[in-house]
Amino acid sequence: MSEAAKAPETAMPVLLREDKGAIATLTLNRPKARNSLSEELMQALLGEVEKIGADPDLKVIVLKANGPGFCAGHDLKELTAARGEADKGRAYYTHIMKLCSRMMQAIVQCPKPVIAQVHGIATAAGCQLVASCDLAVAADEAKFATPGVNIGLFCSTPMVALSRNVTRKHAMEMLLLGEMIDAARAAEFGLVNRAVSADTLEAEVEKMAATIAAKSRLTVEIGKTAFYEQLEKRLGDAYDYASDVMVHNMLAHDAQEGIGAFIEKRDPVWENR
Amino acid sequence: MSEAAKAPETAMPVLLREDKGAIATLTLNRPKARNSLSEELMQALLGEVEKIGADPDLKVIVLKANGPGFCAGHDLKELTAARGEADKGRAYYTHIMKLCSRMMQAIVQCPKPVIAQVHGIATAAGCQLVASCDLAVAADEAKFATPGVNIGLFCSTPMVALSRNVTRKHAMEMLLLGEMIDAARAAEFGLVNRAVSADTLEAEVEKMAATIAAKSRLTVEIGKTAFYEQLEKRLGDAYDYASDVMVHNMLAHDAQEGIGAFIEKRDPVWENR
Amino acid sequence: MSEAAKAPETAMPVLLREDKGAIATLTLNRPKARNSLSEELMQALLGEVEKIGADPDLKVIVLKANGPGFCAGHDLKELTAARGEADKGRAYYTHIMKLCSRMMQAIVQCPKPVIAQVHGIATAAGCQLVASCDLAVAADEAKFATPGVNIGLFCSTPMVALSRNVTRKHAMEMLLLGEMIDAARAAEFGLVNRAVSADTLEAEVEKMAATIAAKSRLTVEIGKTAFYEQLEKRLGDAYDYASDVMVHNMLAHDAQEGIGAFIEKRDPVWENR
Repeated sequence: MSEAAKAPETAMPVLLREDKGAIATLTLNRPKARNSLSEELMQALLGEVEKIGADPDLKVIVLKANGPGFCAGHDLKELTAARGEADKGRAYYTHIMKLCSRMMQAIVQCPKPVIAQVHGIATAAGCQLVASCDLAVAADEAKFATPGVNIGLFCSTPMVALSRNVTRKHAMEMLLLGEMIDAARAAEFGLVNRAVSADTLEAEVEKMAATIAAKSRLTVEIGKTAFYEQLEKRLGDAYDYASDVMVHNMLAHDAQEGIGAFIEKRDPVWENR
Repeated sequence: MSEAAKAPETAMPVLLREDKGAIATLTLNRPKARNSLSEELMQALLGEVEKIGADPDLKVIVLKANGPGFCAGHDLKELTAARGEADKGRAYYTHIMKLCSRMMQAIVQCPKPVIAQVHGIATAAGCQLVASCDLAVAADEAKFATPGVNIGLFCSTPMVALSRNVTRKHAMEMLLLGEMIDAARAAEFGLVNRAVSADTLEAEVEKMAATIAAKSRLTVEIGKTAFYEQLEKRLGDAYDYASDVMVHNMLAHDAQEGIGAFIEKRDPVWENR
Repeated sequence: MSEAAKAPETAMPVLLREDKGAIATLTLNRPKARNSLSEELMQALLGEVEKIGADPDLKVIVLKANGPGFCAGHDLKELTAARGEADKGRAYYTHIMKLCSRMMQAIVQCPKPVIAQVHGIATAAGCQLVASCDLAVAADEAKFATPGVNIGLFCSTPMVALSRNVTRKHAMEMLLLGEMIDAARAAEFGLVNRAVSADTLEAEVEKMAATIAAKSRLTVEIGKTAFYEQLEKRLGDAYDYASDVMVHNMLAHDAQEGIGAFIEKRDPVWENR
């Protein structure tokens, strides 16, 4: 846990971090506030994701939460408090929205895969957090919504991530109706990879993280980075780009080792583990 | 019903409009022609969608149809009649295709959500109409197709909307085979939000429309407009844009009222209802 | 079978071609190498797809494979052999990746629809081959993976096709975990159109090919070409483009014939069959 992520008022850190082998686990820790994304929590998340992203000993991030739910979105009390300022909060809201968008994009840009482990509710920016992760596993009882429309504040930044995860009609259904969907429906939509029973949730995510941790770090980092890069290109440009990535990857030690091990039917020994 | 939407030859309007509270219902009314999209009907639809879009008393549009089916696409007799012209119809076809594309885009650009209530068949430009709406509910017995390929005229404009609703292989299956798919499969594809029994179709759509009509009009309009705008941007640009939209939305009365009501656990009173 | 597609060392061609009416069938024929995509096989595929694309007597391509599986991706022994070169293979890998990307794009650019008939495994570039086809039918027992991550070589070029077929989380699941998914899951993801019992696979694909072969060749070619072109445009540009395509299509003989036959309730006689 970095200093920055500690609440100065109390001894209670809003974000916990635990590293185990090549797996870093980040735990949202504002259970009483349903892990709503206060400025402090967003700064902490951004900072830790960037630090882990640059750490050569780590390969994968698990993002989970303490308390009854995963994340209830922005901290509305914090936002409301800023209304008293001379500009009615404009400068603060601009700062918060930029910080939130930067944090969500840091997850996408982090070269290590991020897995969301979702229980309880994931709403508004909490649903966006799930959508921004590379993989997501939900407990059967988990519920998802983008309910901003119900309180007069449309989930416009959450929709950026949501609409890149699910089809238009599904995204519009969530955004316009503002209703909860359950984990099974979220899996059908493609918002999460799978829904599992609550008592196997942690084990399922651990297994997924361990699977990724067993790969070559360099290879995973090359791949995740290339994935989001090529997605925004036209087909021909995407192929030109991805072909260059493949050549670069082929010439790295770990591809030589991995392919050699495969042909010789032995386990590979990664240099960049 | 506007004058423009009335057939001059008969007293029978090709498009009916009924407003009930904040919900406007448009009913395709060429049942004998299976609601095929004659020039007159497309002009009427375009006109009404634009008028409703600008009406501060309305919040949501339901699009449904009279007769045995929803909409059978273009009016082939009208198209065929133009072949006798000196240019073999080129000018007329250009006019019709531009009008149709403008009408479909008017649905997307209309700041009020449009819900398709689909029974019977929705084929070719009729299927495109469903794909162009923000939400769609279908009766179990409804059927969908892009069958232009069967009559030598590939559904090239319908595919623009279809391919932005469903995956490539699903779109290609419909476009290349030209076969009917049922409502359950359309729901699987994401072309419609849900398939319900025919006798609950109207109630289901009414409930959905009422849910949206209970929101702040301003908030819904901000959100729908931003949705389609951000979809066509790269991730970073989409976030920059959506962050600005959020700040603008936060500073509006209805967000202040909605967030306040939520914190105080009371019902919000929208200014822009 | 063209000369280029014959292995010079043996009499065994790596790619078989059989034309039957308007249907061309290409069969990957390196069963002992699990149809891995050697340079020779990619050259042969590229050449045949381009030739068939330009042949006025053909309307549709079926792509299938001999032996226990569909295609296991690149030929790793061929790739490994190039490591001994002075540049450690850089020039050769660049050549191979460009050739592979060109071949995959030739399938997309070919004006005739290409149907993948998949049995056994389709992995890495083999999975990319399935994703690159317009339609795909899989035997129930078929399995799909992008397992490059397991051997240190992330499936970066396969992801270009994969991520344009399935949602982000599904693509990331396949790419990061490198595990096999079965045909039912591939159908859920949208990677294949349907999964059928192994003993009906061939008949199912034949029926699909025959359905397309019964259409106007010109119409199908206009449509497939327009499909991929409009997909990469913004909505307004896509409609402008597709409207022009529709007018062009309307003025062609086969649309006049097809629409006339439809109105007169008779079978059309295509000029460009």
